[in-house]
Amino acid sequence: MRQAGRYLPEYRALRQKYSILQICKTPELACRVTLQPLERFEVDAAIIFADLLLPLEPMGLRFDFQEGEGPVIFNPISAVEDVDRLRPFQPEEDLRFILDAVSRVAAELGDRLPLIGFAGAPFTLASYMIEGGSSRNFEETKKFMYHHPQAWHSLLDFLARHQAAFLRAQVRSGASAVQVFDSWLGALGPEDFRNYVQPHSTAMLREVAAGGVPVIHFATGVGGYLEDFARCGGDVVGLDWRVDLQQARAILRQQAVQGNLDPACLLAPTEELMRQTEAILKQAGTEPGYIFNLGHGILPSTPLENVRAVVELVHAYSIEG
Amino acid sequence: MRQAGRYLPEYRALRQKYSILQICKTPELACRVTLQPLERFEVDAAIIFADLLLPLEPMGLRFDFQEGEGPVIFNPISAVEDVDRLRPFQPEEDLRFILDAVSRVAAELGDRLPLIGFAGAPFTLASYMIEGGSSRNFEETKKFMYHHPQAWHSLLDFLARHQAAFLRAQVRSGASAVQVFDSWLGALGPEDFRNYVQPHSTAMLREVAAGGVPVIHFATGVGGYLEDFARCGGDVVGLDWRVDLQQARAILRQQAVQGNLDPACLLAPTEELMRQTEAILKQAGTEPGYIFNLGHGILPSTPLENVRAVVELVHAYSIEG
Repeated sequence: MRQAGRYLPEYRALRQKYSILQICKTPELACRVTLQPLERFEVDAAIIFADLLLPLEPMGLRFDFQEGEGPVIFNPISAVEDVDRLRPFQPEEDLRFILDAVSRVAAELGDRLPLIGFAGAPFTLASYMIEGGSSRNFEETKKFMYHHPQAWHSLLDFLARHQAAFLRAQVRSGASAVQVFDSWLGALGPEDFRNYVQPHSTAMLREVAAGGVPVIHFATGVGGYLEDFARCGGDVVGLDWRVDLQQARAILRQQAVQGNLDPACLLAPTEELMRQTEAILKQAGTEPGYIFNLGHGILPSTPLENVRAVVELVHAYSIEG
Repeated sequence: MRQAGRYLPEYRALRQKYSILQICKTPELACRVTLQPLERFEVDAAIIFADLLLPLEPMGLRFDFQEGEGPVIFNPISAVEDVDRLRPFQPEEDLRFILDAVSRVAAELGDRLPLIGFAGAPFTLASYMIEGGSSRNFEETKKFMYHHPQAWHSLLDFLARHQAAFLRAQVRSGASAVQVFDSWLGALGPEDFRNYVQPHSTAMLREVAAGGVPVIHFATGVGGYLEDFARCGGDVVGLDWRVDLQQARAILRQQAVQGNLDPACLLAPTEELMRQTEAILKQAGTEPGYIFNLGHGILPSTPLENVRAVVELVHAYSIEG
């Protein structure tokens, strides 16, 4: 998950002067924001500050973030022809600013800490491109998928190839691991996942794996079809808090696991927060690999001392374990 | 799920003249709306037209439905004292209008079709009462739960007892089965579910079971902890489309299953809709009991002919099977 965000006063201060997009597009600012959480907390990795939607612009879709409403895409995909009109993008040119931010952060970190790059998975990106923003029921996405399966598959194929290239470019710029975010995949049932998404996520993950760094594959709401999700690939399966990690372990025998504290737990009193963090650490075990993380993005109202307490507990536990 | 709704032109016509609350509070209108889908489709049961939030008013919480925004509760629970101030309600008096609607529909149906009554489960109702409406992250609900566990448990205990009494009253008025809706339960992970919700849902279901009619226990987003959810009770476990019914069957050996077509599938071309409906019927099997249903509420943009096609396919399949 993003480590920087509105819960940090120094991030809010910067946001007084710059928009999210300005920060993302200015490598010096993106680098500074990426490093902010590392100055406060002894986390074990940095994650590049960027946004899932940044590749939309070079594809030809204009968007912006509206106060309190999330992203709005001004010319979403609504017809088959819109898919044909998408511009193939070259990460090295069109998303240079992110790659420059990655290089800057990697240089700052040196051997001290790994840097995680990231990109959206085909389904989640397609859902934004079709809905024109966030969605509750993903009605437009599903209608498009059911009514125009050929255009749907060519859209997801396009996204899988370009997003994989984008991640490979992040690796060449210095990312030492990458995460593929399928944040809204849980809108689909297992049947639709298998028919409309799995081949494309699998292709993307295979291509990304060739980049030679560890790959984390994350989604929310896939507790009902964990096995199918994991089969897409990835060295690490990232999960949200709706699954029991011990049960997940029984299914995911070959892959490491990442997760899965409910971000809302960070709003709990310390005692309850510690109890739940410890419960997760126990459920997760360590074989074949475990990365502690939140189950989704950190909430803006999160108290800093709670983040610190969790980081310390996880470290103490790792040393003991 | 509700059978009547905005996808029906005759319902939209009535909504030109009456608000949702006016329809719910006028037994003659609630009865008429309950019967609307039965005049169009050969469904196997009627479900009373009502709203989960109706018990809020006698408890002392005022609310209304705002156009396009869902429900708004004007005086939500924000402090421990608000829980103490909740008024115990008597379904026979305070929710007489629903019971009268149930009697009317039951009388109209006679032996022709069963009528299903329903009520909200403790968690989902509490989440509305605390959030003051619909929610994305259920931040206020979880904060209340973590910070005031004692008040939380007394709130859920209060709701479990009163909602069970409400369902028992619906049975006495003529409902031949009842459904407990925990629509937003999937906001919680398994650990929080077990600690903060399971005892109350279990108590409610035990009390409802004593009413002597079949009980359906429904939630969305619990694919990651199906076993714990099912252990609360209920003759039938109602599931959303995020789980594979065949896999669910392997876990839920003692209970019947209800579900789970994605409501968005009804927006698909007929061929795809038929394929998916058939896939579900095959996955579900028949032992120990199966009720075909949508995985959540029907979408307003659903074409009538698709509803008809699904009902016909399910019937044809039931006869063959």
